[in-house]
Amino acid sequence: MKKTQQSHLRIIPLGGQEEVGLNMTLFEYERKILIVDMGFGFPGEDMPGIDCIIPNISYLKGKEKNILGVVLTHGHYDHIGAIPYIIPRIGPIPMYASRLTKGMILKRQEDFANQPKLNIEELKDGSNVRVGPFQIEFFRLNHNIPDNFGLFIKTPVGNIVHTSDFKFDESPVNDIPTDFGKLKRIGQRGILLLMSESTGAEEEGHSLSEETIFKNLDKIFEKVRGRIIAASFASMINRIQQLIILSEKYKRKVAIEGYSMKTNVEIAQNLKRIKVQKGTFIKTKDIGKFPDSKITVICTGAQGEGRAVFMRIANREHKFIHLKKGDTVIFSSSVVPGNERTVQVLKDEFHRQGAKVFHYRMMDIHASGHAKQEELKKMIRLMKPKFFLPVYGYYSMLVRHAELAEEEGIRRENILVAENGQVIKLTPKRISLEKEKVPSNYVMVDGLGIGDVGEVVLRDRQVLSQDGMFVIVTIVDRQTGKVRSSPDIISRGFVYLRESKELLKETRKQVIAIVNRAAGSGGAVNWSYVKDELRNKIGKFLFSKTKRRPMILPVVIEV
Amino acid sequence: MKKTQQSHLRIIPLGGQEEVGLNMTLFEYERKILIVDMGFGFPGEDMPGIDCIIPNISYLKGKEKNILGVVLTHGHYDHIGAIPYIIPRIGPIPMYASRLTKGMILKRQEDFANQPKLNIEELKDGSNVRVGPFQIEFFRLNHNIPDNFGLFIKTPVGNIVHTSDFKFDESPVNDIPTDFGKLKRIGQRGILLLMSESTGAEEEGHSLSEETIFKNLDKIFEKVRGRIIAASFASMINRIQQLIILSEKYKRKVAIEGYSMKTNVEIAQNLKRIKVQKGTFIKTKDIGKFPDSKITVICTGAQGEGRAVFMRIANREHKFIHLKKGDTVIFSSSVVPGNERTVQVLKDEFHRQGAKVFHYRMMDIHASGHAKQEELKKMIRLMKPKFFLPVYGYYSMLVRHAELAEEEGIRRENILVAENGQVIKLTPKRISLEKEKVPSNYVMVDGLGIGDVGEVVLRDRQVLSQDGMFVIVTIVDRQTGKVRSSPDIISRGFVYLRESKELLKETRKQVIAIVNRAAGSGGAVNWSYVKDELRNKIGKFLFSKTKRRPMILPVVIEV
Repeated sequence: MKKTQQSHLRIIPLGGQEEVGLNMTLFEYERKILIVDMGFGFPGEDMPGIDCIIPNISYLKGKEKNILGVVLTHGHYDHIGAIPYIIPRIGPIPMYASRLTKGMILKRQEDFANQPKLNIEELKDGSNVRVGPFQIEFFRLNHNIPDNFGLFIKTPVGNIVHTSDFKFDESPVNDIPTDFGKLKRIGQRGILLLMSESTGAEEEGHSLSEETIFKNLDKIFEKVRGRIIAASFASMINRIQQLIILSEKYKRKVAIEGYSMKTNVEIAQNLKRIKVQKGTFIKTKDIGKFPDSKITVICTGAQGEGRAVFMRIANREHKFIHLKKGDTVIFSSSVVPGNERTVQVLKDEFHRQGAKVFHYRMMDIHASGHAKQEELKKMIRLMKPKFFLPVYGYYSMLVRHAELAEEEGIRRENILVAENGQVIKLTPKRISLEKEKVPSNYVMVDGLGIGDVGEVVLRDRQVLSQDGMFVIVTIVDRQTGKVRSSPDIISRGFVYLRESKELLKETRKQVIAIVNRAAGSGGAVNWSYVKDELRNKIGKFLFSKTKRRPMILPVVIEV
Repeated sequence: MKKTQQSHLRIIPLGGQEEVGLNMTLFEYERKILIVDMGFGFPGEDMPGIDCIIPNISYLKGKEKNILGVVLTHGHYDHIGAIPYIIPRIGPIPMYASRLTKGMILKRQEDFANQPKLNIEELKDGSNVRVGPFQIEFFRLNHNIPDNFGLFIKTPVGNIVHTSDFKFDESPVNDIPTDFGKLKRIGQRGILLLMSESTGAEEEGHSLSEETIFKNLDKIFEKVRGRIIAASFASMINRIQQLIILSEKYKRKVAIEGYSMKTNVEIAQNLKRIKVQKGTFIKTKDIGKFPDSKITVICTGAQGEGRAVFMRIANREHKFIHLKKGDTVIFSSSVVPGNERTVQVLKDEFHRQGAKVFHYRMMDIHASGHAKQEELKKMIRLMKPKFFLPVYGYYSMLVRHAELAEEEGIRRENILVAENGQVIKLTPKRISLEKEKVPSNYVMVDGLGIGDVGEVVLRDRQVLSQDGMFVIVTIVDRQTGKVRSSPDIISRGFVYLRESKELLKETRKQVIAIVNRAAGSGGAVNWSYVKDELRNKIGKFLFSKTKRRPMILPVVIEV
């Protein structure tokens, strides 16, 4: 009886179903839990001061000994970035990853103190591993980082394919072309459920091949006589490889700048996932020793990140790289939503300093690593799944992906769009949502605090950022009930104090009047009432004078 | 002699050369100054709490009586929005605008107290007005608001054409098609300088005709059986007109929601710049009285603005509009850079509530009001100017526009790319930059304050938003030099205080130790040294415990 009741699989996405990033999914069968990916997400604009967000793992509390392990699909931080925050809380578990992914995980651990030793089993294309009731097979899929693997998971209810992030590319650079024959054979094993990534589901057509990008970059390299300074993401190993190959073709030395990029290149080079000729790399401080036409700098900061190399160059703060006429600057990455304005400022600054600027909106020098509609449909045709679950994307992307699956002939009732924290029940005959929902609100990481910053702290930060704050310290004589001397006012982010002496004087006068009226009447004083009065009346007064609403914090001290 | 020295024109852009928005340009001849446009700009992400930015008018100080007047090209706020902030400071000056622009300016004045009465002369297509040494003629150009006019300015040094914002449209909706014959005739008068807008200079091809948009919207209207809720910009009068025409075609009643949109529609309707059949408009509270298939709501908030109608609908906070299955939501505007994430959240929420969502990336239901490369080149061919000055755009757009002009055969030395505050000298023979630069740093508007918020206040707001603040109030006994009772701590946006009792206890202990050590030694106490000590040591202590850096504000009071 017990067996029958439980003979279904529960799939619980803890993140990745309402955003791009934060990917982490649980597969639970008879209480045993397999985890796929453990990524972080970037904080929204409504989360000032937050370093990153991680999936909520409350559901795993008390179930630690049932966790079979975690499979990491590839080495991007939205798939591995939460490991140092989560593993210490659930204890050491078996981990499975490709060689490069493993290298990137282990390198990152060095940045965190007091981490348990990780036990990562290395898997490669075709590798098979049994984890409890699950049999997992890795199969290669193209992305913009090497060693990216889709998962074929044999479960007691049927076969599941999880695509990881992917694109189809018949002529990639630094990678093997997509093996459609292999994918077809996987599909022929009979797929009960396809879980396919959705980042590109709202974009028509097919993603660009890296070969196209390579050719366009080649045109720039061919023409340019001065230095080339190219920025990309530190994690786009394949793009970095392209820039290295082209530099070697045109006899340019290459300086890699930016800590994260240097680190990634080092790992990839050690693991033979990036190829560099002897003598190509030079130190940035030595770029002056070669003719301009023989120099390429590859660096971080194409998103306009505040402390990254690109921004330091633009602000003339970089120790070794000073822009000059004749330099060519290449933005070889798309702009992450929200960063457009900052990137524009950066571009303008490069123009002003006389550089020639190329960016991906001018020509195809960047390709997304994510399948667009034609590829997503092809994946569905290759896998021919009975059930379909779009994963990894904003809700609108999942909805569009579900529509694509319907266009490909999957029956509507066999397609599910699920949110973070929903529990998906899968049997050989049916896919459905349980009524149950597990906690999935974002856990915010801020400095050493994991999850301690909540709504209250965030709201305060937002209020403080709008109109600043205004602290009023009043000393009251316990004997007379009267204010002693002039109240102290500490204000920041509200008005420029030196030019607001009149306002402060008037405010002090009002503070004294309010406190004396309330406290000076004799008898016991209700101090919390006095503070409320100060907050309200001084708030209104300041608003009437400035139309600003600083956070008012009254302190009354009896001496 | 004096005459000869001054027989050149000075063109001084106070804004609009380093951004989209903030448009304001001075034309100065023999000390007489003509102004074109007086717009505001949106604050950057590095300007928390700021309402808007306006051009810096320091240069006009002391020259008030030399100002001849201001010409407003059209009614968008990036061209008229700074009027209520600037006019009171330079005194009443003659103003020139089209009927709709005038209506929008006057309506907006009602939102501001103590404004001088404006004296606006109404101009229309072909209108001529002499303003000091300048003869100005209005000529119609298409944009996404009616009554948009380019300027033909006859100056003592030669003829100047200023395009305002524009696009070429041979089949616009709610407007007259572009009159290329007329433009050609203007060009034949001999144009010394063309000043042409640059917003679309980095985009290939030709902007979409409003007819295309109209047809695509028609397809949606034709298919949909439920309610249609469409959002756009309040200022996109022509798009609003399209949605009204389509609603009337399909016998839908129209409710306009959102204060700014209601106001604009009212003005445009009164001035016959928008056509609405009798009985089309209904009040939003009455939408329940008609079948769903007969209802269109046109509203504000397609950018995800916090308090706009769209957001209130998404958050289920709107009094009359509650989303339900069968509703169709249309985003008929592009997403302003920086708003992508917010708009995504909005879209997802509509999806979750069961609505069908259409947005401009899915099909062409939005067209920019700005000319793209093919149109910009055509404008240059029509005007055949001797000199070319790209205006209105980010620096990278100006640079690209300059390249386009060169491709069209303008000689490189006859093209100038200028920044805000630079002084352009124009003679019949030469265009050049003066060494002089006039103040052009942004003036920030925050509540009633114009320009009082500066770097210090902004930086404080940014710091406060990151890790909050931490006020320490310590009372010291003047007699003993010792801390009296436990220090008060007021902290916001740093940690959740209730869960940080240990941290606070430990902090108080350290505060007492620091103050007692410094103050208790007898003799005169250097309180500013004590405060520095508190700031540094407590700052370090809190960072060691949390890796956060709240703003530390020590208050020491002797009693």
